Amino acid sequence: MRIALGISYLGTAYQGWQSQPSGQTVQDRLERALAQFAAEPIHTLCAGRTDAGVHGLMQVVHFDSQIDREPFSWVRGTNRFLPADIAVEWAQPVADTFHARASALGRRYAYLLRESPVRPSLDAGRVGWSFRPLDGEAMLAAAAHLLGEHDFTSFRASACQALSPVKHLTHVGIQRRGAYWRFDFAANAFLHHMIRNLMGCLIQVGQGLKPADWMADVLAARDRDAAAPTFSPDGLYFLGPVYDAHWALPERTAAYDWLP
Amino acid sequence: MRIALGISYLGTAYQGWQSQPSGQTVQDRLERALAQFAAEPIHTLCAGRTDAGVHGLMQVVHFDSQIDREPFSWVRGTNRFLPADIAVEWAQPVADTFHARASALGRRYAYLLRESPVRPSLDAGRVGWSFRPLDGEAMLAAAAHLLGEHDFTSFRASACQALSPVKHLTHVGIQRRGAYWRFDFAANAFLHHMIRNLMGCLIQVGQGLKPADWMADVLAARDRDAAAPTFSPDGLYFLGPVYDAHWALPERTAAYDWLP
Repeated sequence: MRIALGISYLGTAYQGWQSQPSGQTVQDRLERALAQFAAEPIHTLCAGRTDAGVHGLMQVVHFDSQIDREPFSWVRGTNRFLPADIAVEWAQPVADTFHARASALGRRYAYLLRESPVRPSLDAGRVGWSFRPLDGEAMLAAAAHLLGEHDFTSFRASACQALSPVKHLTHVGIQRRGAYWRFDFAANAFLHHMIRNLMGCLIQVGQGLKPADWMADVLAARDRDAAAPTFSPDGLYFLGPVYDAHWALPERTAAYDWLP
Repeated sequence: MRIALGISYLGTAYQGWQSQPSGQTVQDRLERALAQFAAEPIHTLCAGRTDAGVHGLMQVVHFDSQIDREPFSWVRGTNRFLPADIAVEWAQPVADTFHARASALGRRYAYLLRESPVRPSLDAGRVGWSFRPLDGEAMLAAAAHLLGEHDFTSFRASACQALSPVKHLTHVGIQRRGAYWRFDFAANAFLHHMIRNLMGCLIQVGQGLKPADWMADVLAARDRDAAAPTFSPDGLYFLGPVYDAHWALPERTAAYDWLP
């Protein structure tokens, strides 16, 4: 039987999603907990790998198991063996043709940022920071250049394993609430470090260090050196994959309501 | 010269506000950082002590020093020596008659709580949790019994050092956003554990274990054994003291905008 899980986690303490020999990744912790509950090794495949320090609101994984349990038993049973900063939010049996990564039609991320002369404290590790004031209109104008299908090589980490640098960015939202900014990104898929590199450029525009149209030049250059440095992972949240409705998977988890 | 500071902190890693021999309190860390910046010992007095695990959005302290620095130098200089989960948000010279505790006309707290079959993960340590659904109308009806001036002995920890158990509760607000509830409390002052004890009772009413009018019985009993157990510190935030406008202190900090 194939089972899909929705996972939420605070990435601060982990070396990213993807399993590593150190065992200090979210996937390692999840698979260890699943194995403890199921009393058999379980290997998971995820919808979108996240970097060290990046958080997940609704990561989705799938795995195959012969263990016959009620869906909520998988949730409760696995959570008993997970650390406090990782939780299984839901479990659902799916058709054998479902694949957490390959079935995803798109992915959504949010970036939270504090604009303040003073660094974050309560929210250290959970928000980026700009001590300079940001210009929302300028950032929106810069972001408009990114919408659509483009070669995003300028925003791609050298270690990126994607087959193609061409991705379709379908949405960029920028909203402010008091001292906090929320940036939303949706695309069919993202390159490695793509959002952190986009954020680096948007912040330079927002701080007035570059004009909004500079973003078009960076995009056209198809050269990583044309873009700003990679921005901090602290404020980046994987909101989750988008699947066709016929899979009937949950679209949100309770963790979602925590975001501003 | 007397100086007032606004402080924000995540209480999870600390044994509360008040200085202890262990040195693992917020006050200890703050005074150590102030001494490093000022190159002299500095003793602070705060507006409201918080328990272990309780967070502060705008704790206010005052101290006296002969050091002559611009206000923002105190902020930036002290923050260099503070851990990432504590920050000085503002500094302001005040008259020698200002006293962080004695000048406070009132205090405000918020309690955040997740209602979900699944425990918190991203927000572990920062929200309380109820796996049972909560009835907001019933909790509001119960809270209405608490408003005004009462003897709050039933909600007072045995270690409480307040001179009188009579406090004036001026506001209780209960709001829901998705899976999260926010409770707001304002009073002239609070007894030790008072809000966590009130929360324990409100949750019992919200879960349908007790009727709303039970709250009036608990209050009238003036007996700690009549109330529910002390609720978790995880979701409790000291929003800050209220001062007369003539002191001209900031009413909010950037940290405020982080709360739902």
